[in-house]
Amino acid sequence: MTKVIADFDNTETPVVIELMGLLGDRVTTSLAVREHHGHGEDYFAPYPPDAVCFPHSTEEVSEIVKICSKYKTPIVPFGTGTSLEGHVTAPYGGITIDLMQMNSVVEVNPEDMDCRVQAGVTRKEVNEYLRDTGLFFPIDPGADASIGGMAATRASGTNAVRYGTMRENVLGLTVVTADGRIIKTGGRAKKSSAGYDLTRLFVGSEGTLGVITEVQLKLYGIPEKIASAVCQFPSTADAADSVILTIQSGIPVARIELLDSLMMSWTINYSNLDNYEAKPTLFYEFHGTESSVEEQTQAVRSIIDDFGGSAFQWTSSTEERNKLWQARHDAYHACIAQFPGKQGISTDVCVPISRLAECIMATEQDTLASGFESPIVGHVGDGNFHSIFLVDINDEEEMKRAKDCNDRIIQRALAMGGTCTGEHGIGVGKMDFLIAEHDEAVSLMRSLKKALDPENIMNPGKVLRL
Amino acid sequence: MTKVIADFDNTETPVVIELMGLLGDRVTTSLAVREHHGHGEDYFAPYPPDAVCFPHSTEEVSEIVKICSKYKTPIVPFGTGTSLEGHVTAPYGGITIDLMQMNSVVEVNPEDMDCRVQAGVTRKEVNEYLRDTGLFFPIDPGADASIGGMAATRASGTNAVRYGTMRENVLGLTVVTADGRIIKTGGRAKKSSAGYDLTRLFVGSEGTLGVITEVQLKLYGIPEKIASAVCQFPSTADAADSVILTIQSGIPVARIELLDSLMMSWTINYSNLDNYEAKPTLFYEFHGTESSVEEQTQAVRSIIDDFGGSAFQWTSSTEERNKLWQARHDAYHACIAQFPGKQGISTDVCVPISRLAECIMATEQDTLASGFESPIVGHVGDGNFHSIFLVDINDEEEMKRAKDCNDRIIQRALAMGGTCTGEHGIGVGKMDFLIAEHDEAVSLMRSLKKALDPENIMNPGKVLRL
Repeated sequence: MTKVIADFDNTETPVVIELMGLLGDRVTTSLAVREHHGHGEDYFAPYPPDAVCFPHSTEEVSEIVKICSKYKTPIVPFGTGTSLEGHVTAPYGGITIDLMQMNSVVEVNPEDMDCRVQAGVTRKEVNEYLRDTGLFFPIDPGADASIGGMAATRASGTNAVRYGTMRENVLGLTVVTADGRIIKTGGRAKKSSAGYDLTRLFVGSEGTLGVITEVQLKLYGIPEKIASAVCQFPSTADAADSVILTIQSGIPVARIELLDSLMMSWTINYSNLDNYEAKPTLFYEFHGTESSVEEQTQAVRSIIDDFGGSAFQWTSSTEERNKLWQARHDAYHACIAQFPGKQGISTDVCVPISRLAECIMATEQDTLASGFESPIVGHVGDGNFHSIFLVDINDEEEMKRAKDCNDRIIQRALAMGGTCTGEHGIGVGKMDFLIAEHDEAVSLMRSLKKALDPENIMNPGKVLRL
Repeated sequence: MTKVIADFDNTETPVVIELMGLLGDRVTTSLAVREHHGHGEDYFAPYPPDAVCFPHSTEEVSEIVKICSKYKTPIVPFGTGTSLEGHVTAPYGGITIDLMQMNSVVEVNPEDMDCRVQAGVTRKEVNEYLRDTGLFFPIDPGADASIGGMAATRASGTNAVRYGTMRENVLGLTVVTADGRIIKTGGRAKKSSAGYDLTRLFVGSEGTLGVITEVQLKLYGIPEKIASAVCQFPSTADAADSVILTIQSGIPVARIELLDSLMMSWTINYSNLDNYEAKPTLFYEFHGTESSVEEQTQAVRSIIDDFGGSAFQWTSSTEERNKLWQARHDAYHACIAQFPGKQGISTDVCVPISRLAECIMATEQDTLASGFESPIVGHVGDGNFHSIFLVDINDEEEMKRAKDCNDRIIQRALAMGGTCTGEHGIGVGKMDFLIAEHDEAVSLMRSLKKALDPENIMNPGKVLRL
């Protein structure tokens, strides 16, 4: 899928020579490594960087950035490469900083329920590390993404309906700025009114304002009781309407995920979920004490009944529960498996909860009318859902049809007071929609970008047209 | 308390002439009005502005700012004037924009649990307006502050332990920038990864980056059951230790407020709380369903027992409950009433919960050793507490002693990983502590300030030394 490019000898450029002096064999210009770093899990044209660095510390990142800054060389931060919006491609060449060798948990403070990790630690590694503490970190995008990448894209996932997104769960950051300074944002107090909220400014800035090297995370006690259940509905509208009422009733569900009948059918195949039907389905999870889970369950049960939902199918064991959620996380792969050779393109709109059913139904009709079998899957408790186009990226007509349909889906969500991206980010593909959504506010974002990165070396070509 | 200044005829300055052309008699240079706007509820030297404007709309604020920008005239936004850190004083003169005539609720969306208000609506007015909707807005600093002022200072209050601060509860803003542009930040979707988080940048910026004119607020369903209770302890340390364990146990208390024995004694006098003793006391509130409130209560009860807490005294009626929380909110006034003629100066540190008891005890010893009767009151569930100095602001020796003690309290909190201000803001008095707390990150804040307000006309002399 990567573009074939000449394997010219980058080792002779001054910036690479200096980087090699700093990092030795932890900087490489090998074509294979560069090509691997030229794209995420997206469908955009891949652009490999000129070289890839593998730092071990914030101080090394600072030195790398200082060298790049001297030569005005673009810098692209790279984690697990699971971005869906072209965040890690290097359209202007330059140096990719692969942070995956910065994979230490720096500290855990169980008594304050927080921890600090290097940017290259993945979400599953955090939870593995916390295994014996009774604490967990809830944010779970489908991929086992790096915490640095998740912070950079303001990621969320299935638990956000109860626990919030990276915005709410990053307490502080260590960031290397465009001139190589090392900045610590935030603190360990639960709240503070001390100065501008730099933490929230860098969360979601997609590497365009600085390189995130460490992240302080909020943790949660593992609930006394965790119960997962599945409910199937006569129609997608019934499922969505029941979600709206569940959220409006203030029931603190931990997860509430929609898979439409098409998505369910492919998921049954891919993940061997033989005990379910190919019908519109909600996956639930309830967290709390025994009695609060019981109470939540009953409250949801009575809502479901009004919309023709099936009896709850409970997953009683941890193993069964993990299988269920793995299947949910594998939805994207289930799509790809259905059409070998095709590429998946995921939309990512999020609307106020009151407009959810309307938005989903209109999206379903639109994709059908556009000639696509596009399953819908989503974090519907947040009003966020994904319609997935399976396309041949070399088929111009099909790509245009998919793009036009995605454009309409976004415009429709914006007209409903929603956003063009609930959790994937702007990257290279949604810069015009950022303007459509935020209008004049984008000029302020540009002013901030120019103030913090005057030479535009931090992940150029992403988020903002300058 | 205001400094007597000459009542010179500001009406002849070009900026005031232009403002009068725009607003007519809604701009005034009357000494009384200017002096009223020269200070908050703080102890800093008051500086009246040259004139005060009373706009009715965002568009009028924009025009005011454009005129001020043309003449490089300082602008000070003003709400209820209840700031405790000198936010509303005008040390460089200029124009105060009093937003209290912008007091409309713009819209309420009960189905999405949000609303939009003009900046001059107060928190009590919001809740009064919502009375029939079953929804409420929880953030409650002691004063009935304006929502715009609360957003600008990242305020919180007694409910923050459960509902968060203004940081978590402002969904979006309308802001007039330093050059008079009208910017809308945020949106109505529950989450978004679209661009830089301008909302969080303006929340807590204390009027130094722009004038907040409208605020989109997150609302909550009024809980099925609300129960308030009071528990008294043998010592402050016992009370604080029980709070630590309550929070670490993850019990979702809605409010948990400490009043030490001195504060309790004065509060009993001021608010006629005759059924309590002058002992270290926690005020609790529990929100939830009947059974969840019962469960929370039992869990807290068993913790309290370990620390020698008294039996819960329940406030069963809404009236009694309101009286209790009014007494808590009146703590500051109870202090002032105790020493007529003296001024109250409130410290505002916040530390990680594990350090709370240690920090409170050291603070108590320090204030005593410094010769003060300084009661302690606080939002201890957040790790935030206030020690209140009663001082004669004309007594230089006493003022220096209070200042030195406050400095030590802050340094101690910072050494514990805490913050110099949990909820009052930096204003004019804590600019050096902002640097002590955030170090090099303050240089980034300065870059942002320069980018958004290059002429330094937005509330100059606050937050940052430029």
